[in-house]
Amino acid sequence: MPQPVLAAVGSSPVGQTDLPGRDLFSLAIAEAFDGLPDPASLADAVYVGNQSETYEHQIMQGTLLAEWAGLRNVPAERVEGCAAAGALALRHAVKDVRNGEHEGVLACGVEKMTAGGTGGATDALSAAFDRAIEQRSGVTAPSQYALLAQRYLHETDATEEDLARIAVKNHRNAAANPRAQFSEPIELEAAIESPPVAPPLKLYDCAPVGDGAAVVLVTTEERAAELDAPSVAIGGTGAAANNIAVAERDMTDIAGARIAAETAYEEAGLTPDDVDIAEVHDAFTVSEALLAEAVGFAPKGTGYQSYRPPSERADGWTDVSLSTSGGLKARGHPIGATGLLQAIEAYEQLTGQAPNRGPPAPETALLLNEGGVADAVTVAHVLTAGGGR
Amino acid sequence: MPQPVLAAVGSSPVGQTDLPGRDLFSLAIAEAFDGLPDPASLADAVYVGNQSETYEHQIMQGTLLAEWAGLRNVPAERVEGCAAAGALALRHAVKDVRNGEHEGVLACGVEKMTAGGTGGATDALSAAFDRAIEQRSGVTAPSQYALLAQRYLHETDATEEDLARIAVKNHRNAAANPRAQFSEPIELEAAIESPPVAPPLKLYDCAPVGDGAAVVLVTTEERAAELDAPSVAIGGTGAAANNIAVAERDMTDIAGARIAAETAYEEAGLTPDDVDIAEVHDAFTVSEALLAEAVGFAPKGTGYQSYRPPSERADGWTDVSLSTSGGLKARGHPIGATGLLQAIEAYEQLTGQAPNRGPPAPETALLLNEGGVADAVTVAHVLTAGGGR
Repeated sequence: MPQPVLAAVGSSPVGQTDLPGRDLFSLAIAEAFDGLPDPASLADAVYVGNQSETYEHQIMQGTLLAEWAGLRNVPAERVEGCAAAGALALRHAVKDVRNGEHEGVLACGVEKMTAGGTGGATDALSAAFDRAIEQRSGVTAPSQYALLAQRYLHETDATEEDLARIAVKNHRNAAANPRAQFSEPIELEAAIESPPVAPPLKLYDCAPVGDGAAVVLVTTEERAAELDAPSVAIGGTGAAANNIAVAERDMTDIAGARIAAETAYEEAGLTPDDVDIAEVHDAFTVSEALLAEAVGFAPKGTGYQSYRPPSERADGWTDVSLSTSGGLKARGHPIGATGLLQAIEAYEQLTGQAPNRGPPAPETALLLNEGGVADAVTVAHVLTAGGGR
Repeated sequence: MPQPVLAAVGSSPVGQTDLPGRDLFSLAIAEAFDGLPDPASLADAVYVGNQSETYEHQIMQGTLLAEWAGLRNVPAERVEGCAAAGALALRHAVKDVRNGEHEGVLACGVEKMTAGGTGGATDALSAAFDRAIEQRSGVTAPSQYALLAQRYLHETDATEEDLARIAVKNHRNAAANPRAQFSEPIELEAAIESPPVAPPLKLYDCAPVGDGAAVVLVTTEERAAELDAPSVAIGGTGAAANNIAVAERDMTDIAGARIAAETAYEEAGLTPDDVDIAEVHDAFTVSEALLAEAVGFAPKGTGYQSYRPPSERADGWTDVSLSTSGGLKARGHPIGATGLLQAIEAYEQLTGQAPNRGPPAPETALLLNEGGVADAVTVAHVLTAGGGR
């Protein structure tokens, strides 16, 4: 089987912008293919992760962005699993290259979240809740995650200050990441004293709303070598959808994430101990804690220690560094693009292009992208340094 | 490589209903798995074709319907290419089985089009047009297809009466199909005299709006044999996205459909001459004419003769029977479910379960499912009789 690799990456700025989604995508494509042949000569299929048609009243983003990238009459489609849409696009690209369907595939993600203001984004995101069971209660994403956080603080030794320290770490990482929405570190006190959103979650526990687009080229090891492009291998991909309604599952055991990660580890022939860096969908600070446990980095009930240096964590914790990009929390979270922004961070870290953040010379990365409230659908990828050259 | 087969099919009624999409899906699942083991024991991945979140304010239909079918913690996602979403779901299922990823996959489609009335459906469908180029002009699907029909009537010998005769044929077929939205044949005069919608298209040239769900089990030939389930092999799958804006392409040469079909024929080792029956996305009567040409059944400019017996068609036409189900025009067109309803027709025809319509004992079927206005994205499948027993 061909070895799928990432051989080119690009993103737009993340945050509020006047540009429509397709123009954000053009910025991402321009960066990714700077110095390379045209996208159409390197890829012959397109997958687009996109959460909601309501932001721009536009469906068929698969066809739209394929055309925008200069590809005509190729397989192109949109995939959707709310905020996991970007990683689902990446997963299809990886599978197609691995199975010999295509030698090059564009995995894309785009979201124009600010088009309808805060109300528009809240309404669009609320469609991810179960309409028959949850939407009638007027739930929002923060209110749902607050249930998880309340339960997590009840079951473990974690405190609200621990959650705030996760935010501080991630903002510090983001300040060293030119792709991040937030470019300034924050103080612990500011995080703790930020206004309540849904107790125990405060403003600084929550990822921001933002526009953004990202694109990566998934291709074969051989083609990456021909291009003389730095590349990283994608050794494993896993996905698992548990269910939508939060009330109908264990709120602190993210089963789908565990299964998705186990699948990806197994395909890659690696274990959690091998992972140097991880991006774990910290849509809320408590997510980083829960997911660190689910994917095998931390013993049950100790995931909240992700902000500490490895020597100060509980026994059984690995040495992994989490959210070196700044994470959703501070690098930003333009929904459909998020899974690909995670992949871009792994690419930059594993090719030595991000020496100013994260551990020195990381060799293995785990990506964990979620849709819905935790566990509604999770996609995991394992990447390793080396590949095309 | 394992041979993917269809081994179980089911659908809800098509038309206006009080049931939400998930309950329509439950009806489809119940029919498909009647007499078989539970879906969860036969499938471990789910793809859902669904056009618009606006009908029911619900995204993540992948997770939702996987849970509804009794599957937990499996890969599940929604795919979207407007009206081609159902065939995109089928295509992923076929690829996963062929590549050995899964032994059984559910390909599902659902749409609850009537939830917001005619205005709601018109608005939801308008999101398939290019927002930057087309939506500002207030275009609708009939107005776009009318441009194609005007051009087609200008370039060929076809008349409005020929288009009406396509409708008459398809309603006649639908009257013999218990799954169809319309159960009565129509008279030629009624079709010709039906009210104008967008000239030259009249009411009877247009597929109806309707709710519906459909599901098929794609599995291996071996497992179908174990189940003693009648099965049909899926030998080829092809997809091609041209572009969205109709003004920026040749309106009577549906290039993407040609390429998608050629890919599917090639994978199956067959040619257009081998095809006995075809479902070709007759969203409007002119579509059947254009697609009959694009997929190689009819010489350029003669596709409108699809309603005639083979002996009365132009030289170069094949003996294929089109839209034996009644087609989108009369079997109905619940967008995300349509590609799978096409697959169900092929399954019933090729397993001898539809002796009252179509040619006797057909052995090969072509399915052609489109999203957007013609050529925005097209998916083709080639199926052949025989398989699990």
